[in-house]
Amino acid sequence: MSSDAPYLFLNGRIVPVSEAAISPFDIGLLRGYAVFDLLRTVDGWPFLLAEHLRRLRNSADALGLVVPYTDDEIAAAIDDLLALNNHHEATVRLVLTGGESPDGLSFSADTPTFFILTHELKSLPASVYESGGKLLTKRHRREVPEAKTTNYLTMLRHHDEIVDAGALDLLYHDGEHVAEAASASFYVVRGGAVFAPGDSVLWGTVGSLVLNLAEEQGTKVVLGDLRLEDALGADEAFLTSTTRGVVPIVALDDHPIGDGTVGPVTQELMAAYERALLGAL
Amino acid sequence: MSSDAPYLFLNGRIVPVSEAAISPFDIGLLRGYAVFDLLRTVDGWPFLLAEHLRRLRNSADALGLVVPYTDDEIAAAIDDLLALNNHHEATVRLVLTGGESPDGLSFSADTPTFFILTHELKSLPASVYESGGKLLTKRHRREVPEAKTTNYLTMLRHHDEIVDAGALDLLYHDGEHVAEAASASFYVVRGGAVFAPGDSVLWGTVGSLVLNLAEEQGTKVVLGDLRLEDALGADEAFLTSTTRGVVPIVALDDHPIGDGTVGPVTQELMAAYERALLGAL
Repeated sequence: MSSDAPYLFLNGRIVPVSEAAISPFDIGLLRGYAVFDLLRTVDGWPFLLAEHLRRLRNSADALGLVVPYTDDEIAAAIDDLLALNNHHEATVRLVLTGGESPDGLSFSADTPTFFILTHELKSLPASVYESGGKLLTKRHRREVPEAKTTNYLTMLRHHDEIVDAGALDLLYHDGEHVAEAASASFYVVRGGAVFAPGDSVLWGTVGSLVLNLAEEQGTKVVLGDLRLEDALGADEAFLTSTTRGVVPIVALDDHPIGDGTVGPVTQELMAAYERALLGAL
Repeated sequence: MSSDAPYLFLNGRIVPVSEAAISPFDIGLLRGYAVFDLLRTVDGWPFLLAEHLRRLRNSADALGLVVPYTDDEIAAAIDDLLALNNHHEATVRLVLTGGESPDGLSFSADTPTFFILTHELKSLPASVYESGGKLLTKRHRREVPEAKTTNYLTMLRHHDEIVDAGALDLLYHDGEHVAEAASASFYVVRGGAVFAPGDSVLWGTVGSLVLNLAEEQGTKVVLGDLRLEDALGADEAFLTSTTRGVVPIVALDDHPIGDGTVGPVTQELMAAYERALLGAL
């Protein structure tokens, strides 16, 4: 299998994908000790770059790792890579590991592995935005919720189950409170207000933008614990993600949210987010 | 940093470490979707090879992966590698990932990445076996307990804390029951019987052997839930691991186990395990 991008950035240099080599001794591979972030382009330009770089550094902090380049250096590398890889619209993946570990356990934060991959941006079918999607609830809490680590064991193990159910993603909860989707932030609307899970979730770049947009248009935003039963009994629900934007969620498992159609607050936020994307042009 | 072994086995071929390249698109790197196993040699020969290969296949099953070689093929690759790498005594690391993923999410179980690394076996100081060691308790449950995945986020994040406390490892529990150490199995002795946590733990190759040895010498073995308070109030405790064998544990955090010295049942099992190692010669 080959990627759709001929070049990548690896440890300071842009190299052809065919020549890019990660050591089998990399601790990101041997022990899953790695963080990443993923941003998208709008008309070819990185969107919310500063926010994604800030989150990447926060994720690195949580694992005692250090991003070995300045924001400007990373921005320049992304620009060079996008110019070479010639996507229509791209996602840009920044990956940081603890680097090589001769004994498979010890490593030095001073010699990390850092690389940048680009992919062609894939969009969800328009029908999902019109009719809404479903999430499968799953009892799980990410191991380091405040960091975007590369650990997607639970999501990938349930991939077939998600597809078979016609669902978009998993919604993680602890039996009592809702946290986040496996690859997205999750919010509900009750009585006209947006409720956002406060703890044990990754800070969402798009989610944060959308909550700001909600407040700007006079919608109340409530951060805090979100009970699973309150999510099930919500008027509306939606997820936010870098690649998918604002996506209406109309069912959790086989339980409809509200009347099972896309509600007015979600529609307003989808429109507001589209305007923000266009405003970035 | 370079490893102490000049060769490795990668996807069917033995290659110099300097020429071994893992793709940056490997799902084991991008999403931590990988399992492994680790065995040791005794006088240069793989110890408990069949048990380790069985466990590797079980781990693969749990993630929907398939080990792409027969036991005989893997045994031959290990033999070739050990002959080339010339260790005094080795650990052998078998790693299986979902293979390359062009989009960073999808992959095919038909095109896995499989490699074998060897390392020089490192032993604990003799004083640990004489005086016993300490574990730090940590509330955590591994995400797929029945599989030996590459996810060691929690252990590696607490590495400095473990070292600063003079401890050997973390002992995972859920607030009520004890499970396993981050890189070892854990057992306690109460009233002359060995108690082994039954669920939510990885099947231990050395642990299983040691429990058999215990029964052979007339020691009762009880499998089942092990309460944290019963571990704290135990007469003796020990861990088992491939690289470390049977290691007496005389403290959990700053709480001594029994009288804080290595007890008679643990001493018997350490001796029985040493005889089993010699018996493999």
